[in-house]
Amino acid sequence: MAKPMADETAELAVGVDVGGTKIHAALVDRTGAIRRRLRIATQAADGRAAERIMEAIARLLAETPDDSVRLRGIGIGTAGQVDWQRGAVRFASDLLPGYTGTPLRDIATRRFGLPVWVDNDVNVLALAEQNLGAGRGSRHMVCLAIGTGIGGAVVSGGKLLRGCWGGAGELGHLSVRFDGQPCRCGGTGCLELYASGTGIAEQMQRKLAEAGVTDRPARIGAREVIAGWRSGEPLAQAVLEQAFAALGAATASLIHTFNPEVVVVGGGVAEAGADFLQRIREETLQRTMPALHERVSIVGAAHGNDGAVIGAALLAWEETKKEEEVR
Amino acid sequence: MAKPMADETAELAVGVDVGGTKIHAALVDRTGAIRRRLRIATQAADGRAAERIMEAIARLLAETPDDSVRLRGIGIGTAGQVDWQRGAVRFASDLLPGYTGTPLRDIATRRFGLPVWVDNDVNVLALAEQNLGAGRGSRHMVCLAIGTGIGGAVVSGGKLLRGCWGGAGELGHLSVRFDGQPCRCGGTGCLELYASGTGIAEQMQRKLAEAGVTDRPARIGAREVIAGWRSGEPLAQAVLEQAFAALGAATASLIHTFNPEVVVVGGGVAEAGADFLQRIREETLQRTMPALHERVSIVGAAHGNDGAVIGAALLAWEETKKEEEVR
Repeated sequence: MAKPMADETAELAVGVDVGGTKIHAALVDRTGAIRRRLRIATQAADGRAAERIMEAIARLLAETPDDSVRLRGIGIGTAGQVDWQRGAVRFASDLLPGYTGTPLRDIATRRFGLPVWVDNDVNVLALAEQNLGAGRGSRHMVCLAIGTGIGGAVVSGGKLLRGCWGGAGELGHLSVRFDGQPCRCGGTGCLELYASGTGIAEQMQRKLAEAGVTDRPARIGAREVIAGWRSGEPLAQAVLEQAFAALGAATASLIHTFNPEVVVVGGGVAEAGADFLQRIREETLQRTMPALHERVSIVGAAHGNDGAVIGAALLAWEETKKEEEVR
Repeated sequence: MAKPMADETAELAVGVDVGGTKIHAALVDRTGAIRRRLRIATQAADGRAAERIMEAIARLLAETPDDSVRLRGIGIGTAGQVDWQRGAVRFASDLLPGYTGTPLRDIATRRFGLPVWVDNDVNVLALAEQNLGAGRGSRHMVCLAIGTGIGGAVVSGGKLLRGCWGGAGELGHLSVRFDGQPCRCGGTGCLELYASGTGIAEQMQRKLAEAGVTDRPARIGAREVIAGWRSGEPLAQAVLEQAFAALGAATASLIHTFNPEVVVVGGGVAEAGADFLQRIREETLQRTMPALHERVSIVGAAHGNDGAVIGAALLAWEETKKEEEVR
């Protein structure tokens, strides 16, 4: 007999989404509904991001009367590369100075006495999309998050693909041009260089310089380039068409690699509009083997900015459920 | 208490490796030892490959007295894309005309009354390498088979990654140049175009034509180009250096995607020699994020031509063992 709804949702988990500028924490139920939330500044520059994360959790719990809810645990989705077994930050860029090595799970477990899971922010976003969003019901899903950079996550056989220590899914660093520009990651011609927010802006600066255009504002962001693409501005169109070709090539590669049912595209840049997603879809399907593109759909993420915090909380259910058959 | 060795090896399985020109069938024990084998021509042109496969199995079984072994089942690793759930060929190229759609599992089950598994030939190769070869003991492994074309397979969490119907692992069709040459698969700038045996030969023909060289044999194969690379011939060196760059970019992408413990490189072209593998290793590590290349080794396949037939037989044990924990 199914439990009554009220029972299912009375159990809550804390979800935390840690970015370079903001920490977003929320109490979330099994259905993904946010019951309470708060946002605080990461203040990353002072190297005390971990303290700020604990503060966010503590404040959220302080606002929650003990007797009204059952807490299943705390899920943290964070920027950077996460050692999944240890629940620690294995590597974080300069956006979060001093964050590399932080044993987040140990710190949070000691402080709150609850089960704690720590994962990469795009992994938890994918969890939300697969359980409750655009990839609902799928067991084989690829997720691309196109924002300032490009992040990725893969669900295979219903489970997040983490690799040997949790570093899997760095899909922004698929090389789409083996003889292309060098990337800060050490790679060459990485997808991020052509199609992330930063990449689009840099390619535009480069095109403007090549064209000898000097009467432009010094700071052109991806938003302006996308607007220029829409209004038919030739340089912006060249930059965006290059981004779509790179995204199409990378997404086709991912379909050839994973044979997924669905590719979910999210992130601030991808959410620029339906026309942006449609161009990615066209470029991808055109470059994918017929046998492999037949059954795959390419869709926008459903949860927007709340995806990561919801997915982080979902770790508390996902990681304790009975091991399923895994094909 | 461990079973005695004799008991373990008394149980055998049939492994079949189906290629465009040859069918290789063998009786294999749990340790990967081949007890008996035969090879027959596929005679693919007449569209009766399935009949030839059944003939190979029948002849192998006829040579095996019933009372001497316990047969666990039949594993078939075949060229083409395989619908894993149905045990049928979903798509095969012109190398095997009329083969697309063949319900191999149903045909073999009806004929021999044994459990039958059908998988892609590179998937079973990976199974052999992971269980008994160069990837032994690893739970996260990527396998590249560089031959006439380039095939791939991935083991994640100890299990073969198959995707929603079995089409996963088409790693020869990773796009390494989003604005590169068109590939017969529908893609653009696929790895295969630069680094497969066929690709290397075609790039050389192209270079020779560009250089206006006409006093060359009409047919130059990858073997000759590799020999030219070794002897310092400039055009051959340019072709091979391009192949290594493409392979390095693709392998780095795969490490960024899967966070594997090991990358196993096999196939006729890769087996050209240790210097060939060493250049792939150098180009890959140079293009991989430090956090991700630290723990990964890039090694040659251990089983050579027998890998696929051994791996096909291993399906009979792999696919019946108790579901393991899958991280």
